[in-house]
Amino acid sequence: MLRFQELYQQKNFKELIRSLNNQHEADLAEYFRELNKDEKIILFRFLKKDLAASVFSYMDSDEQLDLINSITDHNLQQLLSGLAFDDKIDLLEEMPAHIAKKVLQNVSGDERKIINQFLNFPENSAGSIMTIEYVDLKKHYTIPYALEHIRKTGVDKETIYTCYIIDNNRYLQGIISLKDIIMANEDMTIGDLMEGKTISVRTTDDQEEVAALFKKYDLLSVPVLDHENRLIGIITIDDIIDVIEEEGTEDFYKMAAIEATEDAYLTAGVFSLAKKRLIWLMVLMVSATLTGSIIEHFQPVLNSAIGLAIFIPMLMGTGGNAGAQSSTLVIRGMAVGELRQKDTIKILYKELRVSLVVGLALGIINFARILVFEGQSIPMALTVSITIFVTIALAKLTGSVLPIMAKAVGLDPALIAAPLLTTIIDALALLVYFNMAMLILGPSLNMG
Amino acid sequence: MLRFQELYQQKNFKELIRSLNNQHEADLAEYFRELNKDEKIILFRFLKKDLAASVFSYMDSDEQLDLINSITDHNLQQLLSGLAFDDKIDLLEEMPAHIAKKVLQNVSGDERKIINQFLNFPENSAGSIMTIEYVDLKKHYTIPYALEHIRKTGVDKETIYTCYIIDNNRYLQGIISLKDIIMANEDMTIGDLMEGKTISVRTTDDQEEVAALFKKYDLLSVPVLDHENRLIGIITIDDIIDVIEEEGTEDFYKMAAIEATEDAYLTAGVFSLAKKRLIWLMVLMVSATLTGSIIEHFQPVLNSAIGLAIFIPMLMGTGGNAGAQSSTLVIRGMAVGELRQKDTIKILYKELRVSLVVGLALGIINFARILVFEGQSIPMALTVSITIFVTIALAKLTGSVLPIMAKAVGLDPALIAAPLLTTIIDALALLVYFNMAMLILGPSLNMG
Repeated sequence: MLRFQELYQQKNFKELIRSLNNQHEADLAEYFRELNKDEKIILFRFLKKDLAASVFSYMDSDEQLDLINSITDHNLQQLLSGLAFDDKIDLLEEMPAHIAKKVLQNVSGDERKIINQFLNFPENSAGSIMTIEYVDLKKHYTIPYALEHIRKTGVDKETIYTCYIIDNNRYLQGIISLKDIIMANEDMTIGDLMEGKTISVRTTDDQEEVAALFKKYDLLSVPVLDHENRLIGIITIDDIIDVIEEEGTEDFYKMAAIEATEDAYLTAGVFSLAKKRLIWLMVLMVSATLTGSIIEHFQPVLNSAIGLAIFIPMLMGTGGNAGAQSSTLVIRGMAVGELRQKDTIKILYKELRVSLVVGLALGIINFARILVFEGQSIPMALTVSITIFVTIALAKLTGSVLPIMAKAVGLDPALIAAPLLTTIIDALALLVYFNMAMLILGPSLNMG
Repeated sequence: MLRFQELYQQKNFKELIRSLNNQHEADLAEYFRELNKDEKIILFRFLKKDLAASVFSYMDSDEQLDLINSITDHNLQQLLSGLAFDDKIDLLEEMPAHIAKKVLQNVSGDERKIINQFLNFPENSAGSIMTIEYVDLKKHYTIPYALEHIRKTGVDKETIYTCYIIDNNRYLQGIISLKDIIMANEDMTIGDLMEGKTISVRTTDDQEEVAALFKKYDLLSVPVLDHENRLIGIITIDDIIDVIEEEGTEDFYKMAAIEATEDAYLTAGVFSLAKKRLIWLMVLMVSATLTGSIIEHFQPVLNSAIGLAIFIPMLMGTGGNAGAQSSTLVIRGMAVGELRQKDTIKILYKELRVSLVVGLALGIINFARILVFEGQSIPMALTVSITIFVTIALAKLTGSVLPIMAKAVGLDPALIAAPLLTTIIDALALLVYFNMAMLILGPSLNMG
């Protein structure tokens, strides 16, 4: 693709225009991402109107900002008229206020009114990701008339493969797929064929719930209704794929104790990134003083049995890992809908049995390892092994029950479980360890 | 939905059939999941053929097995004829050998041949998730003829919204959307309108790469070609959504040190689950002996400065959390395509700056906290604070560079980074801590 720059330098504009406009919008957007600001602005001018709008809609908000700042009002109007409605909304949500104002001045008064209404939908709501570009039909349309209507109005629609049947007050009466229209006899009406029991969402529904509906019912699009059940938009599957990925990323972040962010990593500021991580690190650090105070409390035990300290990291680490395994399975299982509240008992029983198997295996391996390779005494090896066994059981039960409890009281399982879990398990591991040490090594301990 | 069982007990079969068959397949599948085996088998018999097949395709393999075992060959044939081709393949992949044989005996010879070919595609390949149910057209078809062809052949196709143009040897020549066909003038041919530059995949391509294409190009379906570029199937977006979710789950599992599994959690066996977790726990446990041996090495330092041990869990925990934040950001960024190899320097520079901000903040807070609340000496507070600062910088750099290096040498970043990272950071934190202690507390240490 580097030849575009070459062609420009050779002033071979004819070939430049031909070959640029022959590319797929997604490939061009990828190519533009690598250019510097000036190259970007220059080459963008050679794109035909519709392609320019498509490429523009793929860009980061930073890139979009650069371009908007570089073009005249006339060119901005052209660009905007080529953008899909939901891309316009996305653009306005990302732009700084004075640019958003410039954009709004370049759309028609009617559209501005609708845009302003859309901008008021809360972030991550169905309203914030829907578009108004759908095909609506009436019940009394015959099949040929409906097809003619689709031909006339469908060009700029986000999809024509599902059409929406509304009455004169815009109440949704049903949906029909283009497939059913194509397959139907010509003498039938839309009302005869439409599916009256439609799956729909509200503007205020959370986008994650909308995505769950798409997955459950294998939808390509879904109608969005206002609080009076009037059709005001649709959501299409391409936007839902973004939602699924976004929600996945959010869960990854939460489980790694990072506040979720909508900013792209590479363009986000250092202080903004630091802030997103600092808060949870601080919470975790303070809660780790709990483990510190347990060690402080048992300092005499630690001092009297040389070697006890050696195994603390391994015990805490293994407990933490075992707990994280369980909590991840449960959190992800709940996120994708595989596990539910009512499975709690089943989950706990299963984790208990799994932890006995895992704990027993690791306990035995450790016992042998400590005796043979570390050259420690049998009571010491026993202390560590039993602690491993008990810690794993406790870690796995805590790891599975904590996310379920979090969800039950309305907290986000991913957010709450991961950070809390480590602290709890670390504390449990230490308590078990020191108590086992006193019990088993008791006679040999010299606790001044 | 409980009334279905009631209706059955009241022997009100007419109402039972009416109301059962009035439900959405996805809702019925959800309802059936809650029934016991006998209820399931009985109620399933009241479903009409097509709905039965749809509900069946939503079921877990355990449920499918119960049903197949309970029905006659005749009913099995009926059920199979209603299943989409890709659902048949999924079914056969999951069934035990003797059931798969029973199923294969109940499809036609021609279909058996194709099925056997499909069963040979490697797991997670494009071939394993494609279907043969697509509409193909010829270049010379006129628009009305093409529409007529779609009407005649389209009923059972997975999608009719993208049609595939092939020549007599089944070489793919282009694609066309139903939208373009509907919008076209009647006197044009498919060849005039089709898109010749098509995005396609090979049977052997990894499903994750296929999903990336869907995301990049906003596809609804993609053609699958064999090694001689002949069209042999298509992949539709509903299956890609499953892939995206599956791959997300896999990454979650890997980062929590669980071997990926295709089995549903609730039905998987205890020993199989234990095995999936044991291997990594063992690796991590053994690698944690590294930290143990560091403590052992510095035991004299630990024994001579009462209080040093108290801060070990907090230091290791904070380092681990800081590193996990960075590695998660980088791993997820690479998984969704936001970050690439060539961004390495940018990432490292950014993480370095973020870690300085975060480390400084946590170092200062700790210094104050240890002096005021823990009542420790200034040198001790200084030792802990400097260790925090250095550990966070090291953890964040290791956390971001490790996944990038793993990917560079062809390893899975999610799999390798998370487990290795904890061990490395724990070791680094301890080394920094004990060396700082000797440096700062040196004069006051009484190292017998």
